[in-house]
Amino acid sequence: MEIIETLRWEGGPQGHLVIIDQTLLPTSFTEIKIQTVTDCWNAIKELKIRGAPAIGIAAAYGVVLGMQGVPGKDWERIKEETISYLASSRPTAVNLFWALERMRSVSEGLLDEAKKIQEEDDEICLQIGRIGAEFINEGDGILTHCNAGGLATSKHGTALSCMFAAHEQGKKFHVWVDETRPLLQGSRLTAWELKRRGIPCTLICDSMAAKVMKEGKIQSVIVGADRIASNGDVANKIGTYSVAVCAKHHDIPVFVAAPTSTFDMSLESGNEIPIEERDREEIVNGFGRITAPYQVHVYNPAFDVTPFKLVRTIFTEKGAMQATKWHIAQFIK
Amino acid sequence: MEIIETLRWEGGPQGHLVIIDQTLLPTSFTEIKIQTVTDCWNAIKELKIRGAPAIGIAAAYGVVLGMQGVPGKDWERIKEETISYLASSRPTAVNLFWALERMRSVSEGLLDEAKKIQEEDDEICLQIGRIGAEFINEGDGILTHCNAGGLATSKHGTALSCMFAAHEQGKKFHVWVDETRPLLQGSRLTAWELKRRGIPCTLICDSMAAKVMKEGKIQSVIVGADRIASNGDVANKIGTYSVAVCAKHHDIPVFVAAPTSTFDMSLESGNEIPIEERDREEIVNGFGRITAPYQVHVYNPAFDVTPFKLVRTIFTEKGAMQATKWHIAQFIK
Repeated sequence: MEIIETLRWEGGPQGHLVIIDQTLLPTSFTEIKIQTVTDCWNAIKELKIRGAPAIGIAAAYGVVLGMQGVPGKDWERIKEETISYLASSRPTAVNLFWALERMRSVSEGLLDEAKKIQEEDDEICLQIGRIGAEFINEGDGILTHCNAGGLATSKHGTALSCMFAAHEQGKKFHVWVDETRPLLQGSRLTAWELKRRGIPCTLICDSMAAKVMKEGKIQSVIVGADRIASNGDVANKIGTYSVAVCAKHHDIPVFVAAPTSTFDMSLESGNEIPIEERDREEIVNGFGRITAPYQVHVYNPAFDVTPFKLVRTIFTEKGAMQATKWHIAQFIK
Repeated sequence: MEIIETLRWEGGPQGHLVIIDQTLLPTSFTEIKIQTVTDCWNAIKELKIRGAPAIGIAAAYGVVLGMQGVPGKDWERIKEETISYLASSRPTAVNLFWALERMRSVSEGLLDEAKKIQEEDDEICLQIGRIGAEFINEGDGILTHCNAGGLATSKHGTALSCMFAAHEQGKKFHVWVDETRPLLQGSRLTAWELKRRGIPCTLICDSMAAKVMKEGKIQSVIVGADRIASNGDVANKIGTYSVAVCAKHHDIPVFVAAPTSTFDMSLESGNEIPIEERDREEIVNGFGRITAPYQVHVYNPAFDVTPFKLVRTIFTEKGAMQATKWHIAQFIK
């Protein structure tokens, strides 16, 4: 089975980025060229590329695009403007700011640095997968929410990387996929990735997870993260908190898989994580048909925060850690 | 504001039923004629009319339709066949079987009995509203799931009847409306009813309810029921259990509003309630666009069971009762 490439750079420093347009999956697999920093900003904003690690990598390449043809005298100013612009695309996933900070720190070889971020992501995700796979047992039912798969990273995923690794080890398990309203990253992306890999899975609506837990069919929850505060509070796709509360009620462990670049050690707790609110149209007009009355008021937060007490273990490339301030401090320098 | 009629009989015993086609709301308000028992069965099966009390009333009129023109010698046999046929439309809501049982018990005046069931529903729902309104406080945020409104009954609703009554009493409160995947009865029907009545509301995806609870914006949950076992376990629209678990975590009371015809005293617990599973298409192709990979396995239970321990109080036309075996037995003879 061919590993998909969420994004790749084509050509030299004057080249361009190619991404899979994730808004068209699963019915159409379409790659699109990203040739300007504005293209890149729009692709991130419109979720053509999404997932915390993937938008970090895309933004790094976005800096390369933004600096193409910039004369030396304008270099520093335009670079700062380019970084600020890309940073304004989405507020919650900290990997975006982390990747832009790395790009800020290099004064030449921007493309090399962006490629290095991507290559490191490949290895980090494989390592997360190896570590998380140890927590998957033969016969498990595993619930996942949203897409923390290859499509959320360069190639291998975070939460799904654990499942891919366990599957390659020959373990048999079943994945319950929350469809993940409003944008259905679970049904459109996660179910698609799992089917491609031949991993047995069942699609459910988000509201069904608690029932499936009660039926005894779920032994663990594994999700990704968009930002983790220093105390272990986890911001992730809206609905993760609901899943975690229901998991606690049924005594099911919640695992979070994320690279260490997802930690924001400057934040005391998840209360400080900025939560993006998105357009009402995603809820009232998401599937090509209007499904709510005219002008009804809508609340559409794209993320929520799961308190560290509801998270059993965080899988990172540096190891599996308990989601507490003390344990995190040991791992994240 | 004109009260909508979910269904009405037109003409004498040889007349027909008219219902609002609820699958077309909120973008189109269309009334359709139901002229045969097969029309009636299909309308129930396809959710053109839905909501436990409403399908009971519709089925009662369905018996009238099924018996039109039946000669006396075939009367008893055809009547039994008609009742069995209508009973096969949907398995979970017990009001369907309750209404058909009432129709079985009368040997003439079928139309009068069906009309009586409908008229009683009007008064019962108003009474439930008066009782439940006492539990709504000035300034409350109230979460509801699915549609237990006028459209789920003859006219006045169950859970929403409490809100309508409180609103008429001049209380100010805000309703948080779960969209209710897969068929979006919350966004399509409940938000529509609340807007018509001028009651402030905000539409959210089901997965957002826990976050809104954590934000302190919800003081109570009020939902309807499709069947209540003698121990107080409540079958209701899929997702209700998830809401109840999250409400418990946030120490928010869950209220259930239902006529006493919703109780099935023959069942020891909710484990015995048959749960309808519906077509995968509702999840993968619900609103005009395919949103999941080809042939992905889907689980689509239409209802779940909320254990009595998660329910604070049940509002019925006979009064408000605690959801325990003992309290229920005092009310339901």
